[in-house]
Amino acid sequence: MAIPDALHDLAGLLGSRLNRSDSDRALHGASETHFAPAPPDAVAYPETTAEVAQILRICAGHGCPVVGWGAGSSLEGHALALRGGVTVDFARMNRLLNVAPEDMTARVQPGLTREALNTELRATGLFFPVDPGADASLGGMAATRASGTTAVRYGTMRDNVLALEVVLSDGRVIRTGSAAPKSSAGYDLTALFVGSEGTLGLITELTLRLHGQPEAVSAAVCAFATLGPAVEAVIATIQSGIPMARIEFVDAASAAAFNAASGGDLPESPHLMVEFHGSPSAVAEQAERFGEIVAELGGAGFRWATRAQDRTALWKMRHNAFYAILAAHPGGSPLVTDVCVPISRLAEAVEQTVADISASGIPGPIVGHVGDGNFHALLLPRKGDPAQLAAAQALSARMAERALRLGGTVTGEHGIGMGKLGYMAAEHGEGWAVMGSLKRALDPAGILNPGKLVPGN
Amino acid sequence: MAIPDALHDLAGLLGSRLNRSDSDRALHGASETHFAPAPPDAVAYPETTAEVAQILRICAGHGCPVVGWGAGSSLEGHALALRGGVTVDFARMNRLLNVAPEDMTARVQPGLTREALNTELRATGLFFPVDPGADASLGGMAATRASGTTAVRYGTMRDNVLALEVVLSDGRVIRTGSAAPKSSAGYDLTALFVGSEGTLGLITELTLRLHGQPEAVSAAVCAFATLGPAVEAVIATIQSGIPMARIEFVDAASAAAFNAASGGDLPESPHLMVEFHGSPSAVAEQAERFGEIVAELGGAGFRWATRAQDRTALWKMRHNAFYAILAAHPGGSPLVTDVCVPISRLAEAVEQTVADISASGIPGPIVGHVGDGNFHALLLPRKGDPAQLAAAQALSARMAERALRLGGTVTGEHGIGMGKLGYMAAEHGEGWAVMGSLKRALDPAGILNPGKLVPGN
Repeated sequence: MAIPDALHDLAGLLGSRLNRSDSDRALHGASETHFAPAPPDAVAYPETTAEVAQILRICAGHGCPVVGWGAGSSLEGHALALRGGVTVDFARMNRLLNVAPEDMTARVQPGLTREALNTELRATGLFFPVDPGADASLGGMAATRASGTTAVRYGTMRDNVLALEVVLSDGRVIRTGSAAPKSSAGYDLTALFVGSEGTLGLITELTLRLHGQPEAVSAAVCAFATLGPAVEAVIATIQSGIPMARIEFVDAASAAAFNAASGGDLPESPHLMVEFHGSPSAVAEQAERFGEIVAELGGAGFRWATRAQDRTALWKMRHNAFYAILAAHPGGSPLVTDVCVPISRLAEAVEQTVADISASGIPGPIVGHVGDGNFHALLLPRKGDPAQLAAAQALSARMAERALRLGGTVTGEHGIGMGKLGYMAAEHGEGWAVMGSLKRALDPAGILNPGKLVPGN
Repeated sequence: MAIPDALHDLAGLLGSRLNRSDSDRALHGASETHFAPAPPDAVAYPETTAEVAQILRICAGHGCPVVGWGAGSSLEGHALALRGGVTVDFARMNRLLNVAPEDMTARVQPGLTREALNTELRATGLFFPVDPGADASLGGMAATRASGTTAVRYGTMRDNVLALEVVLSDGRVIRTGSAAPKSSAGYDLTALFVGSEGTLGLITELTLRLHGQPEAVSAAVCAFATLGPAVEAVIATIQSGIPMARIEFVDAASAAAFNAASGGDLPESPHLMVEFHGSPSAVAEQAERFGEIVAELGGAGFRWATRAQDRTALWKMRHNAFYAILAAHPGGSPLVTDVCVPISRLAEAVEQTVADISASGIPGPIVGHVGDGNFHALLLPRKGDPAQLAAAQALSARMAERALRLGGTVTGEHGIGMGKLGYMAAEHGEGWAVMGSLKRALDPAGILNPGKLVPGN
């Protein structure tokens, strides 16, 4: 038997750091959303790149599936062990290895979380901007090409990973990229592994691009009576070239959930949450120009958060949206959508989605990184109600098809995982077959995260 | 015979748009720099993607080499037809297909040049920022992952190509990416083809990210007595977070060549050429902060170019550096270096290079996109002097090795072509073998730009 033989050898390598307990397997076989559990046969906790390479060599030798694990915060079931095997949990490879302030870079291990990194960076005057809602691991964020509220200004993981160390399916260790700000030296392997969801290799080290903490920061919330003008304000703001650091949309239902979760008193109507970064005069100028756009479109009730603790509270509220909305709908089994469209199509994408969700009777609050054309409906069919789950899946499918029709993508930042695999052919056509060819070239036995991302995997 | 049979079929497809004349073959077998000519057997001038697909199918059927051609401005011999075959010249696929001002994107054919694109964009308030010195084709710029003076602010082709249409070696046509600002939908095929130098497919359409023409622009030149403080000023400026639009280094020999070529009167000493983009107040603030840094480091002789025609003259002078320096050294056979290092190592990289060039007796003016850690020595061994060529190649090799030792790359923006192939193993180690695996997966017969980029190709 392939898997038992691999586990025998892995136990010899890792001792008690190979955990076969039911509880640990269950923990690594579950996800944050509605997908059915799929536990691995064991969980490995390597401490070094050399150990990861040995794990891969053992698993390659026995044809044993290998799934990477960071913080488990995926919303698309990326790390479900569909064919059992070994889940490699990077909890013990979670160190900040080096900060190079002059180069504005940091080398980190994949298990380090984004919040832990920023805590360690606090005294340096630098920060790492990419911020998905959860306190995700940086390795996981790279593997899913994550982004968050600040992508409109600082980019996604695509833009903020300079270099990687990766262990391939046969145990070879490669280094991609360098600490130089740019390069034309051959295929962009860094970009290939960023977003590969553990199907091409396991990331064991990342060199990240850091940014200077802005001299001045100002944040605000403003309310709109209806959704249309809020979205129009976003489009006008992006097109005006104001270098927004954040511009987030929150619908009335989400605002209500925020109030319930954090004792706030937002009006229960659509909102924009924004942040400006720069010199004090630049921030003032940006805020003034944004205020003019909002006023023209009937936005009101501006609340400014200039003090650091008020801003922290504001963005904590936004980052906890997933949990606040869950709490407001007890008994819901979340299905999160993640479409992203060209800015010119944002208004129709949001409006058609809202109408569709309203007609369905399923709760589906909407929040979004609308400066990127990216928004999420958090659909909440009742747990254990197959008809509601099917209706929610149909809504999600229509959102995905709508995004493709409007020239967009089915996932702006959450990745493919289990939830978006069915749309890959529609989004990429023959390009999906190309992804399959690349996969077979680097993982011919198909041991890395099987059942995910590529055709017939 | 494989190639004659392919040419027979291609002539049937293209008629007079398959050119087998000696003059056209010679034109497409030459390069801008010192490499030996290597003409193709014929030059094809397709007009549609469908024709490119047919060309590839014919060539795949006969095992005939295929090399892409844009404007022929490569400095590394990318498009030399080392094994003959067909060069596909995109001169007749050079249209701007569409501008979407609301999305700040443009769809273009690969033969359109960057200057032609910007001329067409003038009335839109938008521009495409990536500016290698030459008026390169946009397809060629994508294929070499080019950049230029503005990468420090706007990024390289990696950052400014949103989507591609590519014809694969077997004639399949794929579309990578979308017009959405970001996506997590699987492998980043766009990034894989950007920088692939025609070895994985031929680019037949590009969706480019445009940027708003800045409200205010201000440019300046300032002089330094010696090189050290000029480089220190760059490092201090980048680390201070001033959002420079351009920050270029020019050494004394280059300044002299500029004067000779354009009748200027720059002091013959090291210079920085800079540009600021933003609102009028932001530009004034940036310029003031930059001025303080320069003054502290002994820079002087600031000349401001606030009028558009003065700025155009300034950057035209910089963009013509290659030809100005050639003209100043008649009889030289150019060998251009292109190292890029982390900013923290820039001073030692430049200083050691200058010392090495001085000791060699070979002319080697230095210019550079130093805000990215990227600089070029234009080495000018005498044409037909093998000892000088060998000495120049040894200098170039030491620059490359120095860049790798300092954590950088052998090519910041010119690409691999013929000139940097010998350093791929040193820069990428086992990663170079991975590039070979990817190549074989997408071009198993090895017909696309053979002899380039990957091992044993």
